[in-house]
Amino acid sequence: MTPDFYRGRRVMITGGLGFIGSNLAHRLAALGADVLLVDSLIPDYGGNLFNIAGIEDRVRVNVADVRQASTMNYLVRDRDVIFNLAGQVSHIDSMRDPHTDLEINCRSQLTLLEACRHHNLHAKVVYASTRQIYGRPDHLPVTERQLVRPTDVNGINKAAGEYYHLVYNNVFGVRACALRLTNVYGPRQLLRHNRQGFIGWFIRLALEDQEIQVFGDGSQIRDFVYVDDAVEAFLAAGATDAVNGEAFNLGGDEHIAHRDLVRLLVELAGSGRFRFVEWPPDQKAIDIGSFYADSSLFKSRTGWAPTVPLRDGFARTLAYYRQHLPHYVGTSSV
Amino acid sequence: MTPDFYRGRRVMITGGLGFIGSNLAHRLAALGADVLLVDSLIPDYGGNLFNIAGIEDRVRVNVADVRQASTMNYLVRDRDVIFNLAGQVSHIDSMRDPHTDLEINCRSQLTLLEACRHHNLHAKVVYASTRQIYGRPDHLPVTERQLVRPTDVNGINKAAGEYYHLVYNNVFGVRACALRLTNVYGPRQLLRHNRQGFIGWFIRLALEDQEIQVFGDGSQIRDFVYVDDAVEAFLAAGATDAVNGEAFNLGGDEHIAHRDLVRLLVELAGSGRFRFVEWPPDQKAIDIGSFYADSSLFKSRTGWAPTVPLRDGFARTLAYYRQHLPHYVGTSSV
Repeated sequence: MTPDFYRGRRVMITGGLGFIGSNLAHRLAALGADVLLVDSLIPDYGGNLFNIAGIEDRVRVNVADVRQASTMNYLVRDRDVIFNLAGQVSHIDSMRDPHTDLEINCRSQLTLLEACRHHNLHAKVVYASTRQIYGRPDHLPVTERQLVRPTDVNGINKAAGEYYHLVYNNVFGVRACALRLTNVYGPRQLLRHNRQGFIGWFIRLALEDQEIQVFGDGSQIRDFVYVDDAVEAFLAAGATDAVNGEAFNLGGDEHIAHRDLVRLLVELAGSGRFRFVEWPPDQKAIDIGSFYADSSLFKSRTGWAPTVPLRDGFARTLAYYRQHLPHYVGTSSV
Repeated sequence: MTPDFYRGRRVMITGGLGFIGSNLAHRLAALGADVLLVDSLIPDYGGNLFNIAGIEDRVRVNVADVRQASTMNYLVRDRDVIFNLAGQVSHIDSMRDPHTDLEINCRSQLTLLEACRHHNLHAKVVYASTRQIYGRPDHLPVTERQLVRPTDVNGINKAAGEYYHLVYNNVFGVRACALRLTNVYGPRQLLRHNRQGFIGWFIRLALEDQEIQVFGDGSQIRDFVYVDDAVEAFLAAGATDAVNGEAFNLGGDEHIAHRDLVRLLVELAGSGRFRFVEWPPDQKAIDIGSFYADSSLFKSRTGWAPTVPLRDGFARTLAYYRQHLPHYVGTSSV
């Protein structure tokens, strides 16, 4: 990616006030892009106006729901690159209310792609997919050759959302690709509840000097990507036509067991503690065991590589939340 | 499967007035099952009351749309086995109107499974999936280890529908499995238009002594299953708990190039002719090349095997339509 690619470029980010979306917005504002953030600000979904503190004057916020076809038809019109990050990310919620998860993660992807097909065939779309679509891996590390076998409704709907992007690329010429994210962490993630992944929740508990519960013996392995590295991957994907029509793993180079991760977190925070507990049945039923991704396909195609080691990333994350925690744990999002 | 398994068994067939559903109904009626057929009778979708001619008094028909949650909640209550065959099957239609395809092939599957989860955990569900979810195969024959990579919206929504069944089996204990059908042919298929697969359409053209257009050089290979064999596979799946939680290829033992198939058809019909034509662009964009399935996993698990050779199956099919063609080509479905 040339550093100038995004200067003056008309960019849209769905889920733009959320965790990854807002970090992307900060970077794009710094690069001089014309940034439109679309977010529904549904309570508990991750959108937070505080996430754009410092760049309010350099980005445009449009509160809208990606399920609204007429709105999306309008908003996509003049955009060059669309980072499509809006989503319902709770696996547990998707099992309690599968139809809502379908509307947001599956139906709305069609709506966005239809908007591009009929109103802006020029846009390039980068879709935030998830490693959850693989389910329990057959072997590690996981490459893109492994079967898609989701273990929960959220994983299924995200898989369908991803497939739509690839089909619209191949059939209708809406240039699109998908990044299958593993565990992204860093500043600006929702910490208000524990239904959007364990990592933010663990950070909050450590900072509040509370007990972190580790399921089972904590031997399950994950890889982690610091959000700044994830942002660079999205930028690379948006600027590279060699990725069109494909889905890529996007994981970190370091993988670590839950128990070691929690030890590191407690050590760096200087607060909190942890205890091993039995798996809750509803979590166990959709757990995927150990998982870490092989991201070499995306690296070779774009030159991207993660640069922030786990220890540094956690230190930065803890420093951010030490300063701003009330904005992320209160009942109001601002 | 013991011959008595279905005697008195309370069975429901969604899409029960359609092609495969109605053939299944005939067989189940003969086996002494308590048969409930659910069909929306949406024009052009395949449901046809003539399909149950001869068994009207031995089956119950409930006109309903699988998208209606409250209706499905009621209908599933006392059913032992649910053959879930309702669907929008046109690939071309799915690209013109992707949202409707999603509602029928994706959202309604969740609706049916939620109905079972909350109102009848005892039911066993057999889902009619499709080889279309694989897209263009990497190698032949295609096993279940090949990646799911649909080339059109219909294939994506059918894949999601299949995944839902497996997740509801694994997580909620709604026993379910999926059969990935290749090209099923035989009596009682809609012949009114050419948007539901080429095989019925070719049969109609041959019988009406018209020209059959073969795309490209006709070298693309397919395998075919006579509908009576497909029916036996559904019955075996419904009666076998060893298939729960899995998806299986269900193809025929014979595979044949389009051009040879058409030659055979014209020969057996004694009418019709064929001509090679250029691929229409919208068809070419979603074509998957040659495809034939390896069904050995399902065979080994259930003992099922196809028994009707292609030549016999076509002869029977032609004989059926010679007698009943007006019921399948008219503007009204009865």
